[in-house]
Amino acid sequence: MNDQRLRKLLGSLRTRKISVEAALERLKILPYEDIGFASIDHHRLLRQGLAEVIYCEGKTESQIIEIIRRLRRAGTPIIATRAAPNVFEAVRRQNKRAKYHEAARIIVIQDREKRPTGNVLILTAGTSDIPVAEEARVTLETLGSRVCTAYDVGVAGLHRLLDKQRLVQAARVLIVVAGMDGVLPSVVGGLSDKPVIAVPTHTGYGASFGGVAALLTMLNSCAAGVAVVNIDNGFGAAVLAHRINTMGKP
Amino acid sequence: MNDQRLRKLLGSLRTRKISVEAALERLKILPYEDIGFASIDHHRLLRQGLAEVIYCEGKTESQIIEIIRRLRRAGTPIIATRAAPNVFEAVRRQNKRAKYHEAARIIVIQDREKRPTGNVLILTAGTSDIPVAEEARVTLETLGSRVCTAYDVGVAGLHRLLDKQRLVQAARVLIVVAGMDGVLPSVVGGLSDKPVIAVPTHTGYGASFGGVAALLTMLNSCAAGVAVVNIDNGFGAAVLAHRINTMGKP
Amino acid sequence: MNDQRLRKLLGSLRTRKISVEAALERLKILPYEDIGFASIDHHRLLRQGLAEVIYCEGKTESQIIEIIRRLRRAGTPIIATRAAPNVFEAVRRQNKRAKYHEAARIIVIQDREKRPTGNVLILTAGTSDIPVAEEARVTLETLGSRVCTAYDVGVAGLHRLLDKQRLVQAARVLIVVAGMDGVLPSVVGGLSDKPVIAVPTHTGYGASFGGVAALLTMLNSCAAGVAVVNIDNGFGAAVLAHRINTMGKP
Amino acid sequence: MNDQRLRKLLGSLRTRKISVEAALERLKILPYEDIGFASIDHHRLLRQGLAEVIYCEGKTESQIIEIIRRLRRAGTPIIATRAAPNVFEAVRRQNKRAKYHEAARIIVIQDREKRPTGNVLILTAGTSDIPVAEEARVTLETLGSRVCTAYDVGVAGLHRLLDKQRLVQAARVLIVVAGMDGVLPSVVGGLSDKPVIAVPTHTGYGASFGGVAALLTMLNSCAAGVAVVNIDNGFGAAVLAHRINTMGKP
Amino acid sequence: MNDQRLRKLLGSLRTRKISVEAALERLKILPYEDIGFASIDHHRLLRQGLAEVIYCEGKTESQIIEIIRRLRRAGTPIIATRAAPNVFEAVRRQNKRAKYHEAARIIVIQDREKRPTGNVLILTAGTSDIPVAEEARVTLETLGSRVCTAYDVGVAGLHRLLDKQRLVQAARVLIVVAGMDGVLPSVVGGLSDKPVIAVPTHTGYGASFGGVAALLTMLNSCAAGVAVVNIDNGFGAAVLAHRINTMGKP
Amino acid sequence: MNDQRLRKLLGSLRTRKISVEAALERLKILPYEDIGFASIDHHRLLRQGLAEVIYCEGKTESQIIEIIRRLRRAGTPIIATRAAPNVFEAVRRQNKRAKYHEAARIIVIQDREKRPTGNVLILTAGTSDIPVAEEARVTLETLGSRVCTAYDVGVAGLHRLLDKQRLVQAARVLIVVAGMDGVLPSVVGGLSDKPVIAVPTHTGYGASFGGVAALLTMLNSCAAGVAVVNIDNGFGAAVLAHRINTMGKP
Amino acid sequence: MNDQRLRKLLGSLRTRKISVEAALERLKILPYEDIGFASIDHHRLLRQGLAEVIYCEGKTESQIIEIIRRLRRAGTPIIATRAAPNVFEAVRRQNKRAKYHEAARIIVIQDREKRPTGNVLILTAGTSDIPVAEEARVTLETLGSRVCTAYDVGVAGLHRLLDKQRLVQAARVLIVVAGMDGVLPSVVGGLSDKPVIAVPTHTGYGASFGGVAALLTMLNSCAAGVAVVNIDNGFGAAVLAHRINTMGKP
Amino acid sequence: MNDQRLRKLLGSLRTRKISVEAALERLKILPYEDIGFASIDHHRLLRQGLAEVIYCEGKTESQIIEIIRRLRRAGTPIIATRAAPNVFEAVRRQNKRAKYHEAARIIVIQDREKRPTGNVLILTAGTSDIPVAEEARVTLETLGSRVCTAYDVGVAGLHRLLDKQRLVQAARVLIVVAGMDGVLPSVVGGLSDKPVIAVPTHTGYGASFGGVAALLTMLNSCAAGVAVVNIDNGFGAAVLAHRINTMGKP
Repeated sequence: MNDQRLRKLLGSLRTRKISVEAALERLKILPYEDIGFASIDHHRLLRQGLAEVIYCEGKTESQIIEIIRRLRRAGTPIIATRAAPNVFEAVRRQNKRAKYHEAARIIVIQDREKRPTGNVLILTAGTSDIPVAEEARVTLETLGSRVCTAYDVGVAGLHRLLDKQRLVQAARVLIVVAGMDGVLPSVVGGLSDKPVIAVPTHTGYGASFGGVAALLTMLNSCAAGVAVVNIDNGFGAAVLAHRINTMGKP
Repeated sequence: MNDQRLRKLLGSLRTRKISVEAALERLKILPYEDIGFASIDHHRLLRQGLAEVIYCEGKTESQIIEIIRRLRRAGTPIIATRAAPNVFEAVRRQNKRAKYHEAARIIVIQDREKRPTGNVLILTAGTSDIPVAEEARVTLETLGSRVCTAYDVGVAGLHRLLDKQRLVQAARVLIVVAGMDGVLPSVVGGLSDKPVIAVPTHTGYGASFGGVAALLTMLNSCAAGVAVVNIDNGFGAAVLAHRINTMGKP
Repeated sequence: MNDQRLRKLLGSLRTRKISVEAALERLKILPYEDIGFASIDHHRLLRQGLAEVIYCEGKTESQIIEIIRRLRRAGTPIIATRAAPNVFEAVRRQNKRAKYHEAARIIVIQDREKRPTGNVLILTAGTSDIPVAEEARVTLETLGSRVCTAYDVGVAGLHRLLDKQRLVQAARVLIVVAGMDGVLPSVVGGLSDKPVIAVPTHTGYGASFGGVAALLTMLNSCAAGVAVVNIDNGFGAAVLAHRINTMGKP
Repeated sequence: MNDQRLRKLLGSLRTRKISVEAALERLKILPYEDIGFASIDHHRLLRQGLAEVIYCEGKTESQIIEIIRRLRRAGTPIIATRAAPNVFEAVRRQNKRAKYHEAARIIVIQDREKRPTGNVLILTAGTSDIPVAEEARVTLETLGSRVCTAYDVGVAGLHRLLDKQRLVQAARVLIVVAGMDGVLPSVVGGLSDKPVIAVPTHTGYGASFGGVAALLTMLNSCAAGVAVVNIDNGFGAAVLAHRINTMGKP
Repeated sequence: MNDQRLRKLLGSLRTRKISVEAALERLKILPYEDIGFASIDHHRLLRQGLAEVIYCEGKTESQIIEIIRRLRRAGTPIIATRAAPNVFEAVRRQNKRAKYHEAARIIVIQDREKRPTGNVLILTAGTSDIPVAEEARVTLETLGSRVCTAYDVGVAGLHRLLDKQRLVQAARVLIVVAGMDGVLPSVVGGLSDKPVIAVPTHTGYGASFGGVAALLTMLNSCAAGVAVVNIDNGFGAAVLAHRINTMGKP
Repeated sequence: MNDQRLRKLLGSLRTRKISVEAALERLKILPYEDIGFASIDHHRLLRQGLAEVIYCEGKTESQIIEIIRRLRRAGTPIIATRAAPNVFEAVRRQNKRAKYHEAARIIVIQDREKRPTGNVLILTAGTSDIPVAEEARVTLETLGSRVCTAYDVGVAGLHRLLDKQRLVQAARVLIVVAGMDGVLPSVVGGLSDKPVIAVPTHTGYGASFGGVAALLTMLNSCAAGVAVVNIDNGFGAAVLAHRINTMGKP
Repeated sequence: MNDQRLRKLLGSLRTRKISVEAALERLKILPYEDIGFASIDHHRLLRQGLAEVIYCEGKTESQIIEIIRRLRRAGTPIIATRAAPNVFEAVRRQNKRAKYHEAARIIVIQDREKRPTGNVLILTAGTSDIPVAEEARVTLETLGSRVCTAYDVGVAGLHRLLDKQRLVQAARVLIVVAGMDGVLPSVVGGLSDKPVIAVPTHTGYGASFGGVAALLTMLNSCAAGVAVVNIDNGFGAAVLAHRINTMGKP
Repeated sequence: MNDQRLRKLLGSLRTRKISVEAALERLKILPYEDIGFASIDHHRLLRQGLAEVIYCEGKTESQIIEIIRRLRRAGTPIIATRAAPNVFEAVRRQNKRAKYHEAARIIVIQDREKRPTGNVLILTAGTSDIPVAEEARVTLETLGSRVCTAYDVGVAGLHRLLDKQRLVQAARVLIVVAGMDGVLPSVVGGLSDKPVIAVPTHTGYGASFGGVAALLTMLNSCAAGVAVVNIDNGFGAAVLAHRINTMGKP
């Protein structure tokens, strides 16, 4: 948000030209910072309970550093996804508190950790799906959700999944991550009465078409109550799961 | 569930061969009814809070009637989706309480209506998306969720949507239904901090590819916290929304 | 096979110009009948253990009648797939022994039924998949395989499938028919050590793309030992299953 | 254009065998230069107000150098798009005036800059879309259009866009560049009554399919008055915008 | 716009609670009419120079009639596209001035025709592309643009197109409509220095994929200055062409 | 061709303003007839050895009748493809010599039949491919090529094809028509050293995708010397085959 | 399988709390080992006659080593597919008996080789398809099937295939591997009456789409009795072929 | 061909067990050489007028060297396509006469050049299409066809093509190579009455989908007499063009 405009707004409030409510209303709309290559949305944290997250792919190292600098100046915690190790090296030089979750490829800068609440269960069909699951886990824990995981429990050995039934029953929300045939969410959706968020991954080859096969399986799931996010989108699944996990009663 | 097996199970319980807990455990697995062309899942209501729903497409009229007869005998409320008017006529002859929601193409047979709880908002981008939205609304109300609707508020006239902001803020969960370019969920997702379930519809022509364009838009939504169900799947969105809407606090 | 050529061949044999073996060799190649719009392969029965099957779609009623007439003259049993009821009416007028399997849309003319051998289990995920399963069943039984069926045992109610475990263990070959998400073959493939033939069906809507979603799921199945045939190709699955079912020991 | 032919044409004019008008007419058709691997269209500048632009991908360094040499000999300004840095190095050695726009990947050689006219606004949804926007900006400015930019104003933070409304109202033409869900042109199209040229970018992952998702969103835009160019085609959008921007009144 | 809200707004103005400017600002946002199945955007005419157009497909006859009634009450001219003849019959019964353009499938209700301005040329490759061209023509003429047409001038007989060169040179904007291989816009784009709007049509068979082949041809056009709209979208092309055609000088 | 322009051209010739050669040159360009919905290319017969052929799909009955009337007035023989029976009825009423080839769906009006030359062999894989083959046969025979056919010789019974080897060796050009897996052209291409034109048909179901599977098979043929036309395009294959069949020696 | 649980189970057996049969039943379900990033299915060997196979792609070197270590500890033979040479180097360091099949990219660790049984014939269309065929061959031989191969016998030189007829007749099961047009399985399927497993490969370019063209050809095969596995899935084909090859008589 | 078999065949001939004709017949079928990884088809030269061509992609260097060695031993001329420079280096070491056509990526070993016959014209739309055109040119010249070329004559500057009309009229066959929008074959097909072979190339970006857009344009060409080969398949186009070019009169 432009200083001048903020100053003018507050001036109007002080001279009673506008009401407190009107000032609040405008503050909801105004505060973003235009730095040429990016328009940083400083108040997303207040509007959506989640600060602007930096998706690193397609951004240069110096753009990422600059965006982080501006957000930090405003005291905002940082989540930077799809961050390559060299990006982390650069960020670390500026921010000693920066922490890198390697499997998840996420950089987190947080002044204090949140107390975990609720219960989100993340399942993967295979070992290769773990990086996407970890993107979800790190995001959820940074946002303040409690997370359980059960990895490599695909239906090729159904007893592995049936053995996790207690975890399934205990969860408030489930994130099910699977590539190749993508059948795990359908099976989990048939066993549980909780919201299931299915995440297809690019794991596979040939007619898996980089995750499209798994995506289609999940969209066509015979089990009701399953919704789907983009291929490899562990972050998006986590944000949605966090919103559901932290709901109060109606 | 086969009578014989049930009888034997209860016998074992009575003669203390098995514990109450063991009997419960098995009852969770057993009760379905094999009628040749269908295996009716009588205890889904208990397992998932939602009785088996009849998807009418691809089933003959007599198959539908028979499935309803069996479910009714077990006292289960009926939701039959994608039901053509002639199917309803046939069902009505057997069940005087059957009610037909024409736009939604749903048949409902319910002994008493549930008291609505929570608050689900259903938005559509255009008038042509209403049938899918109605499938969601009827399902939600039958399951016991309170529903608000705001139809035809697509971004071609953005002020129509901005005018509904109060409804958006008040909702616990949002279902956003859109065909053609499918952009409404992205815009709503940017305005709200609640779970958003996006439903693409087949509305459109040419490069909309029967809803694929809208589906892709939604899967790629820049707004986090948006998940997607199959094209025209108002029912699936409703089941998921109901589960979220009725959650207690963590 | 042209009469003249046959006459000449047999003449050569009689005058010892060629050996018996040579005559046999040529007879393997020659016998088909050119009737303009079709080249009827009279000796496929001997070469492949399966007479030429008539795929009715795209053929006119009179073409079908004529092909049947020629095959019957050679004493060949008839299997005509994808036959509409009106085609059967026309065929019935000429062949009183013709039998119509309505759900399977198959016409069979057979002088005597074969004694069933082996054990093929056909499973379907839903009720809407039954017509494709019936195409497989009728084909298998006409060819002489014993068939068991378990219909509507999809994973939305996993206990229905687990309850059929004994049937699954008893089968020599399994045909698993599923539309929509097409996950059933993956789950069955994880439970069984027998050859599994997966048949995707066009059942579904939206992103099922007329069976493509189910097809891809099956091609990407994490369970090894699963092979796939074309969408709705119950007949092809049956022929393959019959070949496997009737194998002797190595 | 072949020298001989040109000489003959001018001879005919001088000896009054043809009129001035006829000579002009033919000159419109003739002048291109065949150099084996390329047929350089020297008079496109006159015919279309835009000299032949060199698309560098798929051409060798020496081919590009040679084409530039021929065009320069004819005094034509140069725009070379999709030029890698090493191509620029090579060009620079031959042409000291050559200028490289790094983000845009364009080489420009121009004897004098044109005075900017009109007003084209270029918007991007995200930071990753900037290279494509820059290809458009550099092209437009080289051709002589005045350009404003507003980058990273996607709908995830709608207020950022609403804050740019004055720029939107002031523009004669708009170029809207977006990847991922590609929704920005639809929203801008609903706010403006000016021609909107939508440019999808390859930004995104998974089901963005290298820009196809954004392309489809734009083709299906509910806002009328939006047309689309190829994925990442900032250059094409700029040429069209320049033609519209420089139109006189009807 | 809701009466109550309008009344209150104007009251505030009269009692000087708000300024004239503020009232104007709000009027820009407010005036739409919520009639349950549609939110009629009454001030789009002022905001975009084009009243809300009714896209008839997917709307019921009575919905269309009601929307027209509301728009007419506000004195708005009507353009209803993709209108089947029976829809026109119904509309005609209510509005005697309604006029039906059969090839274009458009209903127009207009109090007085506008004086034509500028010059838009519409070309088609074949006879089968004419309905889409007519949708564009009727829309343009209703909006007030002057239109020329040259139909069936595809490149299979290139001289037909070359013969129209004078029309091509005279136009301010060109709409080029083509199905099958969709090459006409590329050729026209190479001949003209005016904005070219390409409209693919569904004309063709086999690998034309309902217009996708033509769409791709146009998106990949080697001629710069060509933009594309959705398959069969004559209306969208017309709105964009009208905006360009009616521009004043910079 | 416009009368006026023709008159002027001939006047110029007569008054020696232009040479005979110049007049010829212009006549090559000019003669087409603009009848509003079509631009009839009267001299294609001279330019390409093939009069303009009427593709009936997407044209109204009266448009077809009018185009035929104009072409007949110029003495041109008629080939009208994809003509429904009712179109033929209408044409027949005007032209008693019109002949309808039902399987091929072609109307021919010809003053005298041409003497057949050369030798084109048309093969089909199945009976369902015959209509496309017949479109090719009728076109070829009308143009003056001699045609042999061998229908239903697909590789499921390879001996049927091997038995036709003499026909294959005798042909100058081969047209191979196949749907479903589309393998016949690859096999024929391996046996022959003549040009092979492959025509995929829409025959099949499921993953044949309306002929796409066969089209891809043919485009990827391991046998060199095979080229492909559009799905079901028997006409196009015939025109190309006729051109090759009637070539003189180099 | 968790030690504690195993101990408890056996304790129950010893104290006669459960029957031998019940213990067996549970042992079928329980034994898998959860090592965080993988859930190793130790009893798959018993359940399916095939130990858990390690698919190396997407797993880190250390994950692979650890999984092998755990499986070896249980005495299980190892098959690790899609193993890069560097993975083998690492495995070799731990297991001196590890053997690398380079063309097949498979690591095998086996205590003693099995005696080969039955007869599986593997055919390839070209030389480039050999790596996939070798993946099948090595898998089959490790499992205990006897294998014959005939490589590079595609239909471009049909006599090469016909010359292998004796091998074809002798086989119990056939695996046919082909890229590009993928026609070989159709031709083989027409010659043989044995189960044919078709494996498409990614061999080819352009419209082969990484094996999709071959996959579609095979799915649409006119020859009955052909089933298909995923592109390049030599392993899956081998497992299925082994199951069929080792069947006893019905 | 196996020595033993050849010896036996010739022995039979010498002892008059078989006739000369029979020996010839068998020689047509037998001679191929099985070298494990390849089955070299030594008599394709006689059967098809074209020796087996080596497609280098997917083959190892040593495999290529060995195949060449065997073919050379039989005195066969070599065409090796898609050969990388390092492959040529290796081949050159063994064969001093080997010649490398760099742009075409073809290795040729020929004892004497053939006298060129006929006239094939190769056109390209752009400079980037030249490598594919060169693959066709080198193949044609090696086979003995005379070739003319006109490169970079795409329709963006139509006069360049019109200027080449004399070349177009003089050719017996045309190969038209184009990427991006792929429109050149349609335009050329409208100007010429000769066989036109269209070759799509992968040139382009975004929605060109690696040549699919150009391929579709060509398959849907409105000009009859155009057939298409695979993307980038200059070799296949050349073989077909050579067959047509060298035809004698009917």
